[in-house]
Amino acid sequence: MKIPVGYTFAAAAASFKKPGKLDLGAIVSRTPAVAAGVFTTNKFQAAPVLQCKEMLADGRKMSGFLANSGQANACTGDEGRANCRETLNLAAKALGVPADELLPASTGVIGAQFNMQKWADVMPALNESLSTAGPEDTARAIMTTDTVHKLAESSFTLKGGEVRLLGMCKGAGMISPKMATMLCFVACDADISAEAWQTMLADCVNLTINRVTVDGDMSTNDCVLALANGESGVAIESEDDYVLLRKHLLAVLEELAYKIVMDAEGGTKVAFIEVSGAKNDLDAEKVARAVGNSPLVKTALFGSDPNWGRIICAAGYSGADFKAEDLVLKIGGVLVFRDGTPEPGDMDDLLKPIMKERDIVIHIDVGDGPGSSMLLASDLTREYVSINADYRS
Amino acid sequence: MKIPVGYTFAAAAASFKKPGKLDLGAIVSRTPAVAAGVFTTNKFQAAPVLQCKEMLADGRKMSGFLANSGQANACTGDEGRANCRETLNLAAKALGVPADELLPASTGVIGAQFNMQKWADVMPALNESLSTAGPEDTARAIMTTDTVHKLAESSFTLKGGEVRLLGMCKGAGMISPKMATMLCFVACDADISAEAWQTMLADCVNLTINRVTVDGDMSTNDCVLALANGESGVAIESEDDYVLLRKHLLAVLEELAYKIVMDAEGGTKVAFIEVSGAKNDLDAEKVARAVGNSPLVKTALFGSDPNWGRIICAAGYSGADFKAEDLVLKIGGVLVFRDGTPEPGDMDDLLKPIMKERDIVIHIDVGDGPGSSMLLASDLTREYVSINADYRS
Repeated sequence: MKIPVGYTFAAAAASFKKPGKLDLGAIVSRTPAVAAGVFTTNKFQAAPVLQCKEMLADGRKMSGFLANSGQANACTGDEGRANCRETLNLAAKALGVPADELLPASTGVIGAQFNMQKWADVMPALNESLSTAGPEDTARAIMTTDTVHKLAESSFTLKGGEVRLLGMCKGAGMISPKMATMLCFVACDADISAEAWQTMLADCVNLTINRVTVDGDMSTNDCVLALANGESGVAIESEDDYVLLRKHLLAVLEELAYKIVMDAEGGTKVAFIEVSGAKNDLDAEKVARAVGNSPLVKTALFGSDPNWGRIICAAGYSGADFKAEDLVLKIGGVLVFRDGTPEPGDMDDLLKPIMKERDIVIHIDVGDGPGSSMLLASDLTREYVSINADYRS
Repeated sequence: MKIPVGYTFAAAAASFKKPGKLDLGAIVSRTPAVAAGVFTTNKFQAAPVLQCKEMLADGRKMSGFLANSGQANACTGDEGRANCRETLNLAAKALGVPADELLPASTGVIGAQFNMQKWADVMPALNESLSTAGPEDTARAIMTTDTVHKLAESSFTLKGGEVRLLGMCKGAGMISPKMATMLCFVACDADISAEAWQTMLADCVNLTINRVTVDGDMSTNDCVLALANGESGVAIESEDDYVLLRKHLLAVLEELAYKIVMDAEGGTKVAFIEVSGAKNDLDAEKVARAVGNSPLVKTALFGSDPNWGRIICAAGYSGADFKAEDLVLKIGGVLVFRDGTPEPGDMDDLLKPIMKERDIVIHIDVGDGPGSSMLLASDLTREYVSINADYRS
């Protein structure tokens, strides 16, 4: 794994989760970096989300991220905001960076206040880990119900030299496409302007992380934060440079998006829902979301049941503007339904082996319009229910 | 149980479902009745829905309903429409009513064509049952994954005499609030104009059946059909008469709506989600629906977990226009959250006994606007997943 130049990692166990489990992580850049962020659009924004937005508003460079799992610090009012600032003070001292250059993120149970004593107690361990922890430990520290940690990397060479990108995220549940979902951190050593970096991040997030759904629930804490510290010495100057960096950022985020859905709470399947021929992209997205969030489609995926009527039913109530007779449905490349009628032949026989795969491509064409969209969706399983019914017990 | 005057019932086993199970039902009025209907707004409307809409369009009186379970006759194209008409011909002959006065309804798997031989074979049994079957058997014949049949009745007296209302429905899954959900039949012996009956039905459905959600999936076959045959000899003439009949129709539909949620697929809880103080009713409904359809809220209900942050999170992404700091949340009458901050004290201790109840009242006030809404929502359980993953196997 190629680590971008100038970044170090920290991870420690603060007993926010079960004692001994990594639940506090940090990424530090020795050079203040250009910083970009994309955040949840939920009305109730967690204290760390509000804090990040405030810090990024004035375009200052940032030196790292601080992220904890186990508690969301959301719906915690003024006390939550004050606690968030105090954790930055404590961690900045321990990590040797200015407190106003450390971006916070939290994930876990909504509504409970931090136990500040635990934060104070863990700081020596966090400091000590900074020299030894790799990105894997930090990626583990931000997990909640995730079963695997999620990393992605990419690198490329320009005339100035090699540029490296490293991304990590946590996903699992309370995952929905309408925003920057879950926690995601990207470290890059390119030299790029703050404005270009922010534009590129928002653009790439919209094509990747915002195109996944586990349960249609949009979290209060979602954010994607990205640093570019310039330490590779490679400047992104020309249009071609920009396009190349964008391609690699997109690849990193695409990989993380797939990993989120693959590791969805209780998930066993990944549906690639492709919609084409819609009046516009928004209408295509409505169809994709209705299908990807339908509990009946998701349970059929889980059961490997080629019950394709549920897909058409969901498209029909999606609110998208199209004619019922124009819809053409293909599953795994097999034509299933067109002209308002099922294709002849034993569909079940044809579709059963396709439905048994882990990755299933569902293509829905709704006309001859220019609108298209794509969504990665997980299935809905007994295990998802178990995880979330018993989350706090 | 008071049967409205002039109605008889039929029920038979046609092997659409497992052999021997009642899966075809009919209600016949010996006098042609004023008829009203409310239908799904799904773009893909089942053959019987299209047929009913065509039949009701010209305001003719109707003599009954014919309903089968096991197959939805949806997404079946022209062949499905022709089959639907043929089933009406067969059943009308067997039941002794004109074919163009029998309203069809179907529920079950989407996309498969009827086996017309089974329809022909069952007609003698349907005819025979007409004299003996009660409304219970007919209500059983329309069940799919329902675990109990669902009936409701009401009656009242005007100066002309007694008026009786009888309603039956099937629910269980693919249940969402945006339309007339599931199959529901109402028989009434009042003498009322077609226009007033239709207005009253649409109005009452909107306040009851359209206010329930099991899984947010809107079916292709949903309809509420209602007959008023005038056989009580009681005319609904004055404004007061209208108000009284409306009150009783509302009561019948309210009871059926509750029964649908109580018998939701795999359901163990009924949440009464009340929203007030919104800018308008539509905004209030957005909040209620986001909360009632959130898989995380629904799994917390199932787990009796007072994880109230999930309720606030769902309200926050509902798209309704309100200020985060205005939201006040009460669960079972207990104040949980206001001014952007959780109430002090051990909420878990207070809420745990409330969350263990079958019926749970969640009240969300989002400001001082006039908008309000109510929604009955089921929980999300392992059993729901099992039922729907293995529905056809």
